[in-house]
Amino acid sequence: MDPADFRRHGHELVDWIAEYLEHPEKYPVLARVKPGDISRALPGEAPEDPESFGAIMADFERVLVPGLTHWNHPGFLAYFAITASAPGVLAEFLSAALNQQAMLWRTSPAATELEEVALGWLRSLIGLPPAFEGVIYDTASIATMHALIAAREAALPSARSMGLAGRDGVPRLRVYTSQQANLSIDKGMIAIGLGLDSLRKIPVDDEFRMRVDALERAVAEDRAAGILPIAVMPTVGTTVTTSIDPVPAVADLCEREGLWLHVDAAYGGVAAMLPSHAHVLAGADRADSLVVNPHKWLFTPFDLSAFFCRRMDVVRAAFTLTPDYLHPEPGEIKNLMDTGVQLGRRFRALKLWMILRSFGARGIRDHLGRHIALAQQLAGWVDAHPDFERLAPVPLSVVCFRWKPATRSLTEAELDAANGRLVDEVNRTGDVFVSTARVAGHVAIRIAIGHLRTTEVHVRRAWDLIRNCQPQTSS
Amino acid sequence: MDPADFRRHGHELVDWIAEYLEHPEKYPVLARVKPGDISRALPGEAPEDPESFGAIMADFERVLVPGLTHWNHPGFLAYFAITASAPGVLAEFLSAALNQQAMLWRTSPAATELEEVALGWLRSLIGLPPAFEGVIYDTASIATMHALIAAREAALPSARSMGLAGRDGVPRLRVYTSQQANLSIDKGMIAIGLGLDSLRKIPVDDEFRMRVDALERAVAEDRAAGILPIAVMPTVGTTVTTSIDPVPAVADLCEREGLWLHVDAAYGGVAAMLPSHAHVLAGADRADSLVVNPHKWLFTPFDLSAFFCRRMDVVRAAFTLTPDYLHPEPGEIKNLMDTGVQLGRRFRALKLWMILRSFGARGIRDHLGRHIALAQQLAGWVDAHPDFERLAPVPLSVVCFRWKPATRSLTEAELDAANGRLVDEVNRTGDVFVSTARVAGHVAIRIAIGHLRTTEVHVRRAWDLIRNCQPQTSS
Repeated sequence: MDPADFRRHGHELVDWIAEYLEHPEKYPVLARVKPGDISRALPGEAPEDPESFGAIMADFERVLVPGLTHWNHPGFLAYFAITASAPGVLAEFLSAALNQQAMLWRTSPAATELEEVALGWLRSLIGLPPAFEGVIYDTASIATMHALIAAREAALPSARSMGLAGRDGVPRLRVYTSQQANLSIDKGMIAIGLGLDSLRKIPVDDEFRMRVDALERAVAEDRAAGILPIAVMPTVGTTVTTSIDPVPAVADLCEREGLWLHVDAAYGGVAAMLPSHAHVLAGADRADSLVVNPHKWLFTPFDLSAFFCRRMDVVRAAFTLTPDYLHPEPGEIKNLMDTGVQLGRRFRALKLWMILRSFGARGIRDHLGRHIALAQQLAGWVDAHPDFERLAPVPLSVVCFRWKPATRSLTEAELDAANGRLVDEVNRTGDVFVSTARVAGHVAIRIAIGHLRTTEVHVRRAWDLIRNCQPQTSS
Repeated sequence: MDPADFRRHGHELVDWIAEYLEHPEKYPVLARVKPGDISRALPGEAPEDPESFGAIMADFERVLVPGLTHWNHPGFLAYFAITASAPGVLAEFLSAALNQQAMLWRTSPAATELEEVALGWLRSLIGLPPAFEGVIYDTASIATMHALIAAREAALPSARSMGLAGRDGVPRLRVYTSQQANLSIDKGMIAIGLGLDSLRKIPVDDEFRMRVDALERAVAEDRAAGILPIAVMPTVGTTVTTSIDPVPAVADLCEREGLWLHVDAAYGGVAAMLPSHAHVLAGADRADSLVVNPHKWLFTPFDLSAFFCRRMDVVRAAFTLTPDYLHPEPGEIKNLMDTGVQLGRRFRALKLWMILRSFGARGIRDHLGRHIALAQQLAGWVDAHPDFERLAPVPLSVVCFRWKPATRSLTEAELDAANGRLVDEVNRTGDVFVSTARVAGHVAIRIAIGHLRTTEVHVRRAWDLIRNCQPQTSS
């Protein structure tokens, strides 16, 4: 594709994307294809000869678009609703063209330093002190894995060279999180050689928050059994109900016990930008590390996970290596390759910087506040309806509830099945996409509000569909 | 930014990028800023109020562009030269707008299935059999880490639950690679709890290839010492000299010894698309896993690393978890979140698919062959010049050599210093960017040819600059 063609196709693509972002509602939110439909519709081998961009885009529209689940649809109310905002999409376009690979400062001073600047802005907006240094990873899973590695290295600095296997005198290690934690912690435990059994999931209270009394007992029990506690990982905004673990009390315990405190604020952390919700990060200033995901609730195209750490020296001590073919500048220069597993780092900071400037702090707060208010409104509708039962508090922008008719007596199994069918039926309309989750043992309808263009119209549409589905699901 | 603004700024950005891709040579390849220049030029806090896209772009041009090292400049001849090709850039733009998060099949059937299709195309192009299943990760570092985890789990399936620490009867484990291997293997060893000491770096022959006799002795020694060998990781295209380890002989040994064979073909693997170079992947069909990076030498904007595995069941057995809030479809459906640490997966397959179609297999082979021929041409110039010494064979598209005047006797230390100064001086011109590396103990000038728009003009320019630098460097 020569430069003239790039320009022409680029302009065509801008128009396609503008149309897409303007009218996402012309597509069903949840893809309607069957497994294998896409792969069967495509050739088994790459073409031998070049094909035109027009032909490729025609296949994109014909074969791939029906296979998209539209995360950018304002009726997307499942999992965590995310947004590729317009400035974020433009920034990714620019970043792709610049193709920066910021492994060393010299290979992209702009990407290296803008990462520091943009993360500094974000840190300040959510109220963390400057003692936290930031680094951008792709996902919270990778950020969490690095937190686990840092905790492991802090407790056992010889692990870097000697590892964990076949060593005398190295005890079993233990990490604590709540029963409501995200499975990225489980995955990290598997990856770094600690194993799932070394993760102890602490029970939660009736609002799905980690019970610090149970945590204290678990740590004491483990110490008594010769197991070495190394870290506690509370969550600010758990994945099912967005419950907020009592970080200040956990921080007290971590200080007393000398444990690494990592706060998983991947979803909930940005809410601290609102004066009304600054408390969600209470105690986080005492954490060793914290993750917050701009690609969740900060309108940033996937992927961009921000990892803040008060002890980045521990991460650097683990990962700094100087091979024969790279010559880092001496002195105080930061090289991003030293802060983690990945040598290569793409220019993700560009989109965060453009988004923060384009919205301004005020613009972001307005949207976050609007989403939280919409969730409260929905919670109010649920609470006021005799045939629905709310299953969890709504501290942020997610509402978990279920259909439970006031006038009929159904077993728990019948209720679970009926709510599952209800959600399937609602999703089949294509107008909205909501997910289910298990809350306190019940199948819950889970509505997550977080897309930039989601308004009361979409939330009300979901609620109307859910209410009107009742007759079918109760048969 | 409303839809009309997106359209307007999108068109402006297409023109900016088209101009950038058309005339990269108006910028110095290597950024000329000093550490801190960028961060000092930007405010310490995010703006409170929204700013216009025009204002943001003005700052981008004023502050950030001088801090870019231009990986997309045809004079970029350092590290591995990579390209954000035009179809790849457009695909990333589209992918950002679609904002697919392909953790589950249902959350993006198109991204999930296109990943399988595009990787199938690539697998076939490089001559791997269909027994290899593919998955896309961000970087080769992460792919390699997963290969290490798979090797660990295959040798010790209880590691997933019980980990490595504090267990009786678990021996020390050992992984083997060559002294020329990429440090992503070291980082992976640290991350997954095996530790650097568990990585044994096998000596190389005089063409920088892993010595299989030494490997055999090392494995036997370790077994005799009660250490459990688990994996060998040869390289196809090492990072310094692009040497190619003898994979067939390593595969023989791995079969005899029951070791996981992972081939690091991150850079060199794509060369197997050329009939003349199919041999570089000889024996790789017998590997357990292999990594090849389209973002290195397949004109794909960073990041996209392809991991092929004959035993993806081992990876899945390690990482499959089913939490309360996700409901994978039953049956044969693939969910990308099960193949690794990262839960979230972005739509990287789109760019690989668009690039393979846009170039066609023939177009890609033409460029790879052209780059290899340019490297041979440069090697010929070096060999013919009395004052330069080639330091390694040139199996692919990288040439390592040094200035060593025929008529003067200089110490090794003087030669090292002179070659280092020479490279600095050449890079200061801004016309080209070449790197140094240590080859057989000497400081080498290392020229990597891999950018799509690099032609004989750029290689000759680099060679002329290097030749003309002689007087200054020998003073």
